[in-house]
Amino acid sequence: MQVLHMNKGNGDTSYAKNSTVQSKIISVGKPIMKEAVLEMLCNNVIESMGIADLGCSSGPNSLSVISEIMDTVEAANRLLGRRMVSEYRVFLNDLYSNDFNNIFMSLPAFYDRLKEEKGLECESCFILGAPGSFYGRLFPTNSLHFVHSSSSLHWLSQVPAGLESNDLKRLNKGKLYISKSSPQSVVDAYLLQFRNDFSLFIKSRSRELVAGGRMVLSFMGRSSTDPTTENSCYQWELLAQAIMSLAREGRIEEEKLDSFNAPYYAPCTEEIKDEIQKEGSFTIGRLEAFEIDWDGGAVTDIHTPHGKLSVGRQVAKAIRAVVESMLESHFGIEPDVMDDLFIRYGDIVGTHLSKSRTKYINLVMALTKKW
Amino acid sequence: MQVLHMNKGNGDTSYAKNSTVQSKIISVGKPIMKEAVLEMLCNNVIESMGIADLGCSSGPNSLSVISEIMDTVEAANRLLGRRMVSEYRVFLNDLYSNDFNNIFMSLPAFYDRLKEEKGLECESCFILGAPGSFYGRLFPTNSLHFVHSSSSLHWLSQVPAGLESNDLKRLNKGKLYISKSSPQSVVDAYLLQFRNDFSLFIKSRSRELVAGGRMVLSFMGRSSTDPTTENSCYQWELLAQAIMSLAREGRIEEEKLDSFNAPYYAPCTEEIKDEIQKEGSFTIGRLEAFEIDWDGGAVTDIHTPHGKLSVGRQVAKAIRAVVESMLESHFGIEPDVMDDLFIRYGDIVGTHLSKSRTKYINLVMALTKKW
Repeated sequence: MQVLHMNKGNGDTSYAKNSTVQSKIISVGKPIMKEAVLEMLCNNVIESMGIADLGCSSGPNSLSVISEIMDTVEAANRLLGRRMVSEYRVFLNDLYSNDFNNIFMSLPAFYDRLKEEKGLECESCFILGAPGSFYGRLFPTNSLHFVHSSSSLHWLSQVPAGLESNDLKRLNKGKLYISKSSPQSVVDAYLLQFRNDFSLFIKSRSRELVAGGRMVLSFMGRSSTDPTTENSCYQWELLAQAIMSLAREGRIEEEKLDSFNAPYYAPCTEEIKDEIQKEGSFTIGRLEAFEIDWDGGAVTDIHTPHGKLSVGRQVAKAIRAVVESMLESHFGIEPDVMDDLFIRYGDIVGTHLSKSRTKYINLVMALTKKW
Repeated sequence: MQVLHMNKGNGDTSYAKNSTVQSKIISVGKPIMKEAVLEMLCNNVIESMGIADLGCSSGPNSLSVISEIMDTVEAANRLLGRRMVSEYRVFLNDLYSNDFNNIFMSLPAFYDRLKEEKGLECESCFILGAPGSFYGRLFPTNSLHFVHSSSSLHWLSQVPAGLESNDLKRLNKGKLYISKSSPQSVVDAYLLQFRNDFSLFIKSRSRELVAGGRMVLSFMGRSSTDPTTENSCYQWELLAQAIMSLAREGRIEEEKLDSFNAPYYAPCTEEIKDEIQKEGSFTIGRLEAFEIDWDGGAVTDIHTPHGKLSVGRQVAKAIRAVVESMLESHFGIEPDVMDDLFIRYGDIVGTHLSKSRTKYINLVMALTKKW
C-alpha cells in the first residue's frame, strides 16, 4: 500500500494540523506506556537504549511519545540518583512515502529542548529515520529495548487479499469496509489479512527486541466480537454514504466505490491475544480498551446547530488527513470534488453524532519479550 | 547554515538531475574506497557492519556509494568462500533540510535490487536516515566500521566566524570567496574556520568508529599552498562576476554581494594532515589529488560556439543546484532574476573555459582509526 500516507506539510488539510484524535489516543495510553518503561528499567541495565516509534507519521505527535519516554527514564534517573540509561538511540519509523522531511526539520528545536529541559548533550541522543513497513523487519536483531506504536496497527499491509481479485472485489457493494450488509466472505477476508499482518508484526519485533524488552501498542479495535458493531466501523459507513451521494450525481464512479475496500481492521481483544500467543515470544501485561470521541473529546455542544456543524467538520478534517491519499489514488478524485466530499461527510457525521454519540474503541496493550 | 541544501525534487534545476560532477568524483575515488573496505575486512570480524555516508544529499548519487561498498564486501565474501559481514546497518546523513523524502521513496527499488543482484534478504540490510550536521556527533560511540563522505567537507559549518560581524563583512568587497584581491584577514578567517570545523569532524568520527574502522573522504581542495590559485576558487570568481553584472543593472544589491562570503573552503593537503595529526586517532593511508573537469568530463568540444554555450550552461546548472538555496536566502533573489543570473554565469563560464581549461582539484583520503 505505497499510497497510504497522512496528508503532508502544514496546511489546513494536513495531518500535522488535524491529528488531535491521535494526540488524545497517545495521552490515554500514556500511563500504560510509563509503567512499561519503568518496569523495564527495573529489570535491565541499559548502556544504550534503543527506542522505536512505529508509524510515527509527521506533525506534533511524531516526537511527543519519544519525549514522554525520555521524560520517564530521566525521572527514574533522578529518583534513583543514578543514570539508568546513558544514551538513547531513537528510531522514527513510517512508510517510505511519509513526510520525514517535515519531522527532520523539527529536530534542531527538539534537540535544543532536550538540552535545556533535560540537560541532555548531543552525544547522548541520536534520532534516526527508519523508513519501511513494520510488517517485516526494520531493525537489526536484539537492537531495541522499547517499541511504541500508536494509531497505526489498524492499517493493514494491503486490501484483504481475496478482495483484490477481479471476481470478488464487488462482493462489498457500496461499502468501504466491513458493514452490516457485508457477506461473511468479506468479514473472513478482513480477519485473515489482519491475522497474517499482525503475526508478521509480532514475529518481526520479537527478533528485534532484546529479552525483557517492552512493546506498547495502541490502535483502533472493538470491544465486541461482532465485527459489524457500530464502534468499529461506522466512520466508514458514513464515508461510504458521502461517496454514494456524489456517485448518484455522477461525480464519482459508483463502480469504484464497489471495488474499494479500506486496508483497515479494528480487531477485538481475542483476535489479538490469539496471534500473540501463537507466536509465543511475548507475555501480555495489560490489554485495555478505551472509548475515544470521534472529535478527540472537544467540549463543543453537539446539540446546537452550530455545534453539530463544527463537530462534523472537525471529524471530517481529521479523517480526510488520514484517508485522502488512498481515496485520491483509487477514485482519481479532483480537488474540488474532494473538498465537496468532505463537506458532505462532515454534515453526515454531525447529524449522526447529534443522534448517537458513537465512539471509537482504542485498544492499548503492553507486551514483554520473554527471557 | 540551515539554508544550505541541494535543490530538491526531480525537476530541471534539481540536484538529482544535475549531479554528474559529483558522480564523476565518486567514481574517481572508487578504487581507494574499495581498497579501504577490503583492508578493513582482512583485519576485522564484523557481525553487523555500520556504514555511514555523510552528506549523502538526494538523487542518483545518494545510494550509489552504499551500493559500491556492499558490492565490495559481497565480492570479498565470494572470494573467501565465507560471509565476512552478516548484516549491514547503513546510515544516510545530511543536514536537516536535505530532501530525505526523495531518497526514502527510492528505497523499495533499492531493496529489490539488493535481493535480485546480491541475494540479500530484507533482514540483512537496514537503511536509516541520520539527519544532522557532521560537524558534531551523529552516532553512538564505537558503532561504525566505515565512514564515507564525498563532495561535502568543503562546506564549512558557517560563514567564517570573523566575516559575519558587521565591521568586517565588507572586507571581501565584490567577491563570494577567497580571491586574488581578498585581504589576508579574509584568507585567515577562512583557514581558521576550516581548521575548527575539520578538527571537530575528525574528533566526532573518532568517537563513532570502532578501532580499525576506516574513513574515506573526498572533497574539493587545492594542490598549491596558495589559496588564491585558480583551481581552488575560480568558479566563485566567475559567479561573483555574474552577480556583479546584475548589480550594475540594479537587479541585485551590490551591498549584498559585498557582505556574502560562501561557507566553503578548498584546503591543501598540508592543512588537512595538520588537523588529522593534531587529533591523533587516525593514520593516513592515502591522500591523493585528482583533477576534475568543471563539467564532469563531458566530451563536448569547447572550441565550437555551440560547445562553449553547452559546457557553460551545464556547469552553471550543476553549480546552481548546489548554491541556489544559499543565494536565495542571502540575496532574496526572485525566480526570474535567478534564471537570468545563471544564464549569464553559463556564458561567462563557457567563455572562460574556452580560453583556459581550469579544473577542480578533488582530494581523496583513506584514514584508519588506530587500535
